[in-house]
Amino acid sequence: MIQVLFAASAAEWDDYSNSLPKAFAKAGLDVEISLDIAPEEPALIDYIVYAPSSRLQDFTPFTGAKAVLNLWAGVENVVGNKTLNIPLCRLVDQGLTEGMVEWCVGHTLRHHLGMDRDICRTDAQWDPITPPLARNRRVTVLGLGELGASVATALVALNFDVAGWSRSAKDINGVTCLSGDAGLDAALARADILVLLLPLTGDTENLMNADRLAMMPHGAVLINPGRGPLVVDDALVDALDSGVIGHATLDVFRTEPLPKEHPFWAHPKVTVTPHIASSTRPESAAKVVAENVRRGEAGEPFLFVVDQAAGY
Amino acid sequence: MIQVLFAASAAEWDDYSNSLPKAFAKAGLDVEISLDIAPEEPALIDYIVYAPSSRLQDFTPFTGAKAVLNLWAGVENVVGNKTLNIPLCRLVDQGLTEGMVEWCVGHTLRHHLGMDRDICRTDAQWDPITPPLARNRRVTVLGLGELGASVATALVALNFDVAGWSRSAKDINGVTCLSGDAGLDAALARADILVLLLPLTGDTENLMNADRLAMMPHGAVLINPGRGPLVVDDALVDALDSGVIGHATLDVFRTEPLPKEHPFWAHPKVTVTPHIASSTRPESAAKVVAENVRRGEAGEPFLFVVDQAAGY
Repeated sequence: MIQVLFAASAAEWDDYSNSLPKAFAKAGLDVEISLDIAPEEPALIDYIVYAPSSRLQDFTPFTGAKAVLNLWAGVENVVGNKTLNIPLCRLVDQGLTEGMVEWCVGHTLRHHLGMDRDICRTDAQWDPITPPLARNRRVTVLGLGELGASVATALVALNFDVAGWSRSAKDINGVTCLSGDAGLDAALARADILVLLLPLTGDTENLMNADRLAMMPHGAVLINPGRGPLVVDDALVDALDSGVIGHATLDVFRTEPLPKEHPFWAHPKVTVTPHIASSTRPESAAKVVAENVRRGEAGEPFLFVVDQAAGY
Repeated sequence: MIQVLFAASAAEWDDYSNSLPKAFAKAGLDVEISLDIAPEEPALIDYIVYAPSSRLQDFTPFTGAKAVLNLWAGVENVVGNKTLNIPLCRLVDQGLTEGMVEWCVGHTLRHHLGMDRDICRTDAQWDPITPPLARNRRVTVLGLGELGASVATALVALNFDVAGWSRSAKDINGVTCLSGDAGLDAALARADILVLLLPLTGDTENLMNADRLAMMPHGAVLINPGRGPLVVDDALVDALDSGVIGHATLDVFRTEPLPKEHPFWAHPKVTVTPHIASSTRPESAAKVVAENVRRGEAGEPFLFVVDQAAGY
């Protein structure tokens, strides 16, 4: 009997209490799931299914555990944990990827077409403005991991003129792939619409500061479904006020829920979406968790292992 | 010297005065373009580039003309002209197709994601509602011509569950293709989101009446970038008021510009866009016109010839 500790919130257990046992059974695994993060015999736990917000922050007692299987796509709140000396696996969930592509493509098209004007119109004003074609609209995606690459590819399929930037060089069909510091400047300089899908690391925190926002074409659009701290909030508000940035559509924030007094809420050039772009879907996510347990038991390499030195 | 009569508005000539001569030159054609719709020697005109709103409504004098090359995608205001006894070619413009795909995919994603809630929010309310995945959203496209087929295919690429309906049976990769009367009922019954891209004919006029609107799932979304008279306006307003239809996004109307007193303008469940979905792009459209003139001169069959009996 494989012992799995589910170390996440009660709400997350609600989401997974059906799908996780089902996925284990479907993978042919005989699993006992426990919810007690301070078990009497922690050494008997084989795998820890983990949300970084869990009160479990000391992995030391779990001497027999083979892997920590993260329930979230982001690992920034666990990867630096000094007590973690076993493989940490990110959650790469097909449902999450699809949802992210839909949200990003939808909001890119929204800004490309200038939809807000029509959606929010309060007068009977017939004023046709034909938008340019997507082939004449330059979109840049920062971050070309699973999510960024999928979003960039979907935008290419709609004929957008797409560039992507990542720390290490990539090669994605139809996407102008840039990397390194000079590549970042070039990626920003041509971004009519910028989509942030970088992991949060020491290098990417506060990346979009006043200087980098000013590198973008005047009036460009910023879309952030990645991580809140990628953007310097005050610098963004200033850039919106001065017209340097035309609009910001933000799904993630330094503090969530976004506090009621935060200037983003009332700013006419900010659209707040309440962290809905990147929700995992328990049904597909549970399959990924079960597959990694199966791999661990079979002695096969885990999927989506985090590079703990790189931080993602 | 080939004689081409440009029978369209002054605004249309503004759009084409550069691109059309350039396209003829690029096709290797020696063309004289005239704008006089009542020339002294009408028999000398070889081709008529035509907007259905033109004051030229009697083609009888143009005894030497080889084809009427429509500048619009829609032909409903010229196809029934009894004086027209030469081939009439629709405008199939790659720019128009791309723009239509972008508008339709954009508004489909907008409704799928429930964007309006976030775009129009006036309070600091953090209320995450994760939308379903596109694979669980049923979209139906009525009309599978060049535009409808392209839109359906783009929606399939984003994983939407797509059906299409057309008068005659079609086969499009990934699309559940329906046809005939029974097919129409089935197409409507599964349409969480319905996109109208039918030509306007005697058969399709008033197609979306109260009965057919009621066949759709309760609270479904109607998107009409096709032709205004496909929809019975009063029936749509009633269906919106009763909740049968959840929202309508309309780009085309029986009278354009949409009159200020029309109930669509102020209706909270209607989004009016001012006929911007389907604008032809003169640069790409001019190439199509020039190609048809080249074909006519070379004795090759014209592209996109209208079936005048079928009406499209």
